[in-house]
Amino acid sequence: MSDEILKLFGQRVKHLRKQANLSQEVLAALSGLDRTYISGIERGRRNVGLINLVKIAKALNVSAEQLLVFEEKND
Amino acid sequence: MSDEILKLFGQRVKHLRKQANLSQEVLAALSGLDRTYISGIERGRRNVGLINLVKIAKALNVSAEQLLVFEEKND
Repeated sequence: MSDEILKLFGQRVKHLRKQANLSQEVLAALSGLDRTYISGIERGRRNVGLINLVKIAKALNVSAEQLLVFEEKND
Repeated sequence: MSDEILKLFGQRVKHLRKQANLSQEVLAALSGLDRTYISGIERGRRNVGLINLVKIAKALNVSAEQLLVFEEKND
């Protein structure tokens, strides 16, 4: 279950980033995080903490809960 | 900003836990987390990661995004 969540979250971030026409570099700059960290999140390799989740949401101009709107597949 | 987010999140968890009539012990058992960890979250002392956030949401029978529905005060 955990890997699936991180992947879905990563896809959600990537989707919203592309919708906002931002590169990973720009999202990193806006959120104050490292580009490699953003890249790791988008690939589902990082278990993002709440504080960074909120930073990413602000940079994407969405609410934190909107970042978590994704469907989890049943195992 | 970060401390405020953790406090608001902790209040949200506590509110939903009480609404569900669960003790910290029972929420801990249902989510597979330690009671001291739940206690730390509710007091805003823990930067919860996405995987544990989802575990807590499932244990509370709410969606992950519902856990993040709280208003952040402006600084």
